[in-house]
Amino acid sequence: MTPVWFMRQAGRSLPEYRALREAGGTMLEACLDPATASEITLQPVRRHGVDAAVFFSDIVVPLRLVGVEVEIAAGRGPVFPEPVQTAADVARLVRIDPSLVEERGESIVDAVQRTTAMLAEEGERRGEALPLIGFAGAPFTLAAYLVEGGPSKDHLGARSLIHSDPSAWHDLTHWLAEVTGRFLALQVRAGASAAQLFDSWAGALAPADYRRAVLPASAAALEPVRALTVGGDRAVPLIHFGVGTGEILADMASIGVDALGVDYRVPLDAAAARVGSHLTLQGNLDPALLFAPTEVRRAAVHETLAAGLAARAHVFNLGHGVPKDTDPDVLTDLVRTVHAWRAS
Amino acid sequence: MTPVWFMRQAGRSLPEYRALREAGGTMLEACLDPATASEITLQPVRRHGVDAAVFFSDIVVPLRLVGVEVEIAAGRGPVFPEPVQTAADVARLVRIDPSLVEERGESIVDAVQRTTAMLAEEGERRGEALPLIGFAGAPFTLAAYLVEGGPSKDHLGARSLIHSDPSAWHDLTHWLAEVTGRFLALQVRAGASAAQLFDSWAGALAPADYRRAVLPASAAALEPVRALTVGGDRAVPLIHFGVGTGEILADMASIGVDALGVDYRVPLDAAAARVGSHLTLQGNLDPALLFAPTEVRRAAVHETLAAGLAARAHVFNLGHGVPKDTDPDVLTDLVRTVHAWRAS
Repeated sequence: MTPVWFMRQAGRSLPEYRALREAGGTMLEACLDPATASEITLQPVRRHGVDAAVFFSDIVVPLRLVGVEVEIAAGRGPVFPEPVQTAADVARLVRIDPSLVEERGESIVDAVQRTTAMLAEEGERRGEALPLIGFAGAPFTLAAYLVEGGPSKDHLGARSLIHSDPSAWHDLTHWLAEVTGRFLALQVRAGASAAQLFDSWAGALAPADYRRAVLPASAAALEPVRALTVGGDRAVPLIHFGVGTGEILADMASIGVDALGVDYRVPLDAAAARVGSHLTLQGNLDPALLFAPTEVRRAAVHETLAAGLAARAHVFNLGHGVPKDTDPDVLTDLVRTVHAWRAS
Repeated sequence: MTPVWFMRQAGRSLPEYRALREAGGTMLEACLDPATASEITLQPVRRHGVDAAVFFSDIVVPLRLVGVEVEIAAGRGPVFPEPVQTAADVARLVRIDPSLVEERGESIVDAVQRTTAMLAEEGERRGEALPLIGFAGAPFTLAAYLVEGGPSKDHLGARSLIHSDPSAWHDLTHWLAEVTGRFLALQVRAGASAAQLFDSWAGALAPADYRRAVLPASAAALEPVRALTVGGDRAVPLIHFGVGTGEILADMASIGVDALGVDYRVPLDAAAARVGSHLTLQGNLDPALLFAPTEVRRAAVHETLAAGLAARAHVFNLGHGVPKDTDPDVLTDLVRTVHAWRAS
């Protein structure tokens, strides 16, 4: 049976999530409150019957933990009141000790522990183990927000810094690699059983820039998790994902991951041909299909499943995060459709 | 010598443009005032010595001409106070007669005629002909704005309508094809010597959706220009461009164009391999390089020129529009660097 989970499965598409968040508090407060974060993480597992939970958090959480001022503006995304744009800005930032992630990460550890306990209960009811996927943002995507001071259309600020000040860029992204890598490892040590690195905006880069100025920092971000071993083996599988990454799929795979998320622009069989058949592929139904008539949507799910056979293994997912206007019943039906499918 | 021009070469990067616009009026008023539009069109030609002028206009101008309410919000983009989201909205819209584009397009004809006259003078000074490139938006990109009511990150509204109501989608995009195609033909009949169709957001589509639900409307949009012939030959060359279109380059070329614009994510030699060597390629220096040190930037220009040798012919351009913070002197230097280059 092909397992299925959804990027951003916990969140605004669920009425129970909106009810919980309406009780008050900012998005980052919700991420940092263990009872809230674990409850939100479990909501889509209970409702949709997905095969994995994704830790409810945000890629900027480790930055908040080490003391960088940041908020998540509703309907907009992460906003940094003090953007990091000059060599002096970078120098100030990288003086912050990344080990503050662990020192101040107690609420994350607590939330992960509560979540895995709740998942164990839920898994017992279902008669199957329910893994928790931890996640973190990759250095480029974090830098894209930090340099612009918030979301942007083409991340030109960060992409320009690569060329205008390669040394500041190097320092910034390698500091981010350590901060975000520690955040990911923290989740794994607390009990997460897989780790996904999101480089959401890597597809905005020219491939040569990705390889030269981004890939090494992404690989470095995985080091803290890679260092965790169980009986000589890596403790957990590593997953990597970005949007619009058709030109750099093989490069993204090359940072040393077990699974690669593919967005909806590249069919999974084409993706397998690009990255080699040793990788698990994750994806990639176009979220636009969530608004299609049932039969059209189910046919598209079957097509995605068939294309996924070209990979070593396939984890069904959307080709991007769950849109906020999604009808939750459609997601539940998607899970059932995936589970009911047998390769013919 | 490889010719060079820049997408969005007229506009906010030029102080003389900002001075002219500060005199007052909205963006659309500037587009619809022949003296202003022609002057703005000439500004980058005079300053940078580019080899072509691009008519100063906007892809929503033909919609304004036929009476659709639209404004261009500074720093944001086109905004439609009444988004077109339901079958009823589409039915209302497509009742508008597309021939109003010509009936009310006098200011466009006037602006093009003034511009070509000014270009003839400028060309005489330089001792070379200076073509005017007319342009229009492709149906999908126009629909992306119309359905959302403004700019959006992933154009999910339009991409969903493809699936949720294929019939409304068909009617909407074929009506848009006629409106925008007439706008393009109007510019050519008035004297433009090339015609570019911008499908800026086509790269947001899954390739199968592009082929099935977008490509036919794009081809239809070119019909009014294709119908214009001189001595049995097509009157002007046709150019097509979109961002992030690596997966659909060959499909975009297949609508029957002479030249294809390529964004910075796909090196020109790779693009030539995908679309075949019968096409002129246009592109594709990453705008991020405009912020690099001079030597780094010039080396990147040389690399782009060398990659362009793989195409039947190469027109140098950026891989996206000129960013508003660009130092104009950098663009001028870019033109000189391209003109000074000889394939070794």
